[in-house]
Amino acid sequence: MKISTRAKVTALSALAVGTALLVPDIAVAVNPAPASLAASAGATRHDPAGDASSSVKAAIDSGDAKNVILLIGDGMGDSEITVARNYQYGAAGRLPGIDALPLTGQYTTYSLYREGANKGKPDYVPDSAATGSAWATGTKTYDNAISVDIDQAPQPTILEIAKANGLKTGDVTTSEIQDATPAVLVSHVDARSCYGPDSPTCGNDALAAGGLGSISEQLIGTRPDVALGGGSASFTQTANAGQWAGQTLFDQATERGYQVVGDAAGLTAVTAASQKAPVLGLFTPGNFPTRYAPTTATVGGADLPAVSCQPNPERLSSDLSLGSLTTTAISLLDNKKGFFLQVEGASIDKRDHSADACGQIGETVDFDEAVQAALAFAEKDGNTLVLVTADHAHSSQIVDSTPPTSLSTALATADGTVMKVSYGTAGVGGSQQHTGSQLGVAGFGPGAANIVGLTDQTDTFFTMSNALELDRNTTAFSERARLSVDRSVKPGSTVTVKADRFGGDRQVSASMAPGRAVLEPTDIIDSAATISFTAPTALGDYTVTVTGAQSGKQVTAKFTVKK
Amino acid sequence: MKISTRAKVTALSALAVGTALLVPDIAVAVNPAPASLAASAGATRHDPAGDASSSVKAAIDSGDAKNVILLIGDGMGDSEITVARNYQYGAAGRLPGIDALPLTGQYTTYSLYREGANKGKPDYVPDSAATGSAWATGTKTYDNAISVDIDQAPQPTILEIAKANGLKTGDVTTSEIQDATPAVLVSHVDARSCYGPDSPTCGNDALAAGGLGSISEQLIGTRPDVALGGGSASFTQTANAGQWAGQTLFDQATERGYQVVGDAAGLTAVTAASQKAPVLGLFTPGNFPTRYAPTTATVGGADLPAVSCQPNPERLSSDLSLGSLTTTAISLLDNKKGFFLQVEGASIDKRDHSADACGQIGETVDFDEAVQAALAFAEKDGNTLVLVTADHAHSSQIVDSTPPTSLSTALATADGTVMKVSYGTAGVGGSQQHTGSQLGVAGFGPGAANIVGLTDQTDTFFTMSNALELDRNTTAFSERARLSVDRSVKPGSTVTVKADRFGGDRQVSASMAPGRAVLEPTDIIDSAATISFTAPTALGDYTVTVTGAQSGKQVTAKFTVKK
Repeated sequence: MKISTRAKVTALSALAVGTALLVPDIAVAVNPAPASLAASAGATRHDPAGDASSSVKAAIDSGDAKNVILLIGDGMGDSEITVARNYQYGAAGRLPGIDALPLTGQYTTYSLYREGANKGKPDYVPDSAATGSAWATGTKTYDNAISVDIDQAPQPTILEIAKANGLKTGDVTTSEIQDATPAVLVSHVDARSCYGPDSPTCGNDALAAGGLGSISEQLIGTRPDVALGGGSASFTQTANAGQWAGQTLFDQATERGYQVVGDAAGLTAVTAASQKAPVLGLFTPGNFPTRYAPTTATVGGADLPAVSCQPNPERLSSDLSLGSLTTTAISLLDNKKGFFLQVEGASIDKRDHSADACGQIGETVDFDEAVQAALAFAEKDGNTLVLVTADHAHSSQIVDSTPPTSLSTALATADGTVMKVSYGTAGVGGSQQHTGSQLGVAGFGPGAANIVGLTDQTDTFFTMSNALELDRNTTAFSERARLSVDRSVKPGSTVTVKADRFGGDRQVSASMAPGRAVLEPTDIIDSAATISFTAPTALGDYTVTVTGAQSGKQVTAKFTVKK
Repeated sequence: MKISTRAKVTALSALAVGTALLVPDIAVAVNPAPASLAASAGATRHDPAGDASSSVKAAIDSGDAKNVILLIGDGMGDSEITVARNYQYGAAGRLPGIDALPLTGQYTTYSLYREGANKGKPDYVPDSAATGSAWATGTKTYDNAISVDIDQAPQPTILEIAKANGLKTGDVTTSEIQDATPAVLVSHVDARSCYGPDSPTCGNDALAAGGLGSISEQLIGTRPDVALGGGSASFTQTANAGQWAGQTLFDQATERGYQVVGDAAGLTAVTAASQKAPVLGLFTPGNFPTRYAPTTATVGGADLPAVSCQPNPERLSSDLSLGSLTTTAISLLDNKKGFFLQVEGASIDKRDHSADACGQIGETVDFDEAVQAALAFAEKDGNTLVLVTADHAHSSQIVDSTPPTSLSTALATADGTVMKVSYGTAGVGGSQQHTGSQLGVAGFGPGAANIVGLTDQTDTFFTMSNALELDRNTTAFSERARLSVDRSVKPGSTVTVKADRFGGDRQVSASMAPGRAVLEPTDIIDSAATISFTAPTALGDYTVTVTGAQSGKQVTAKFTVKK
């Protein structure tokens, strides 16, 4: 029997992905005339008569990138990629996004022990906090750490640095926006579960303890231009310390200038995102529901009739799919100075933990649509580095026969055959584990060649930062900070201090001497802030000191209270 | 605590690998000054201030290769590579061979169903027979098939084609030389277990059934210049059909011109390998013992004290290590016309099947030494394509906590920490399964860029064949075949027929008319063969017909028997 799986696959793919963008011309040397899979050269992906050398060479762009889009499939090891491809497009098919990137490599993902005799030594199976911190900061750290080093010192993140360098920034996920992978860009805490002011795990990071605050509170302060995902529940919590004490985080965000949206209509109404009016779109209290309804792996489950994944009735509308959110984020971020955007498909990991094959597959397919959206933009833009990778490997394995004690599921695939997926690292009801394998990383655009070969996850930070030509010494950006204030004010009138050139800071604090040790902190927006307070009634000379919260830079200005 | 794991690792690596060759200058952009792993940029593998674009570009060589060395780690998925690296060199260390290759990609490994409703459709978890056949022939086939397609039609192999194109050829393994991975280069059978004439599974492939013969018998006929490995047991079997019936395969090989060696001293005494005197070195009855003594994973085993791998007292002497055999094979094959060599580290797979972590690690380290040997030659030669990959993924996973029902082992690694390895696809005493994940593939030298991105295992055949500029239409090589014979011979004297220009064949058969339908087949050596037989006593004109066994080309010559 001669079959033409590839033709079937293409038809299916068009059907399944719907309006997804296809970017085939990025991939190198695609086989132009695949025959039956069983024929000589019938299964090759490249043109068997061709040579990809020149197209691979052409894919290497040593220039600088204006934009970087980093796409993270959480827990998306090579096994998870293959599971999704086999199911959705067939084994000989292509994930239209992930499989299209022309440059490929692998990286190591280990974390470090934080304490005891093993402090600083490799911990072979990392969590998403340590791994995210690795690419976000270039510093290896311990499991549970959000962009702090093994001594809990905050490490500047690629998003913070990009922002200080004048780029727009975005953070998009299908999980709670406080989850480790989105959190590493915008916050620095010791315990990843420190989501909001009510979290009992914040410890010294809580504002009340003099820390930087919970992840949600730090996110507001970091002020990415675009933050889209789930996790609205934490924003309904009320700050219990600091200048916003007693207000919900949603109210705080609104007061600090955010455009807060909670549904597709709200997001559609947003026409611009900037430091003056950043966008905070949180569409679910927790994580997004996945594309496909969950399946349950059981001991012996792969011996049961193979299942087809079913649409998840809980799924958000298609304009809130990860692909759509990616397109929206890009359109809001695209500007002449460039942008940094991270996009995460979070539930590949989460559903793998739950031994839910269809959940995991659907999220990988959704993530692939986000990759397609990024590539479509990058291809047109010509000046955008796109990196696609994962944070850590995971449990799911494609097996030949049903394993005797592991959980397993049989799936009816696009090929019309059966794929058995096994989860062997936890028992019934347990959480399947991350695994310690090195991972694939793929790239397109300026600087992408830096991911070829074997790198470490921390290399990714430098690949992105170097491609964008970021100056990482951001505290120096506030060195020429200055203040302006009216020399002379009436007693009890409003004093307006204009702080400028504070590009290395996200907030400033102010004080007045004699008299007021601390005025409320103020957001720096586009390097500047305006601080207003009531002038003393006592006549005389006063000094205002404004201090950069990140740079520590202090600038003073004098004024006189006169009748 | 500041640590310097990298320094320790380097020292350890030198100690552990002993005299292994280091080829660091092939890898791109190595971090020149790694600090503590916990420092910013302390764990990067590339120079954090550098750009690898130009070195990656420089690694792309679109020229033709004189030689190809294909190194296969059987069952060496990314997880198995990481397990070995973590154990032997530490997580931040490098496998000096595997991790040094500058160009990297991934490929799919699925096989096809051979029959029934699923015939020709993807089978997601392949065996080593189907996968080896894929790169050996460029044709996808079914599990169990050795270089035949799904309709059992023999497919020309890269070794056969290279040989017909005038290259020297070699086949080196740590397994039985009849095992699937080495067998796919030199034989064509329906059942991979058809090792020798005594095998009950040969069926229609047996010589007695009119087939091409067992794998061992076909190996002799394919006549690679160098074949080194285990599996001498099958060569002590006696042919039960054909012209060598009644003789052992060892005797047959010797009579057909082979230099047969069985120990290190014998191999050392070999000074050249050629078609006139190819080398058959079989050093064990079965598979080679591994570098490290076996360990046994048990349910809950990773909760036991971590073990250090112990030297295996059964291991062959170091001059028969896979690295040494690779060096020896290269030195015997290197010639001005070029060569094709495949080297397999077979027991990564075999020990993974047995949930033997130390066995699997030791074989990966041995395999890595073979890669180092290949790279050392290729770097000096400047005209050699080196590809390093695997045939299929496997079971072992690095986990964080001891899985409840899977087998596991805890290992004390070079980092001074503990790595837990889990095997979850079979129970106690069962065979851990291959898995269906896509695999890494790495390359160096002319044509290596063809492995970048996502390819299929069958692409590898074309990558190698194109790099070597092989003419795959080898049967045409016999088109200008010719014979010479004395026009006139005495009755009963010896007739000597010289066959020439039979470059598309490995054997020829001959017949004489009137009188003898079949003369014994004769090996073609360097395109030629000499066929001798006794002239008839009856006077008259006779015609000799010589037929190429592979090409079917027939050439005739006439002679007259005269007083």
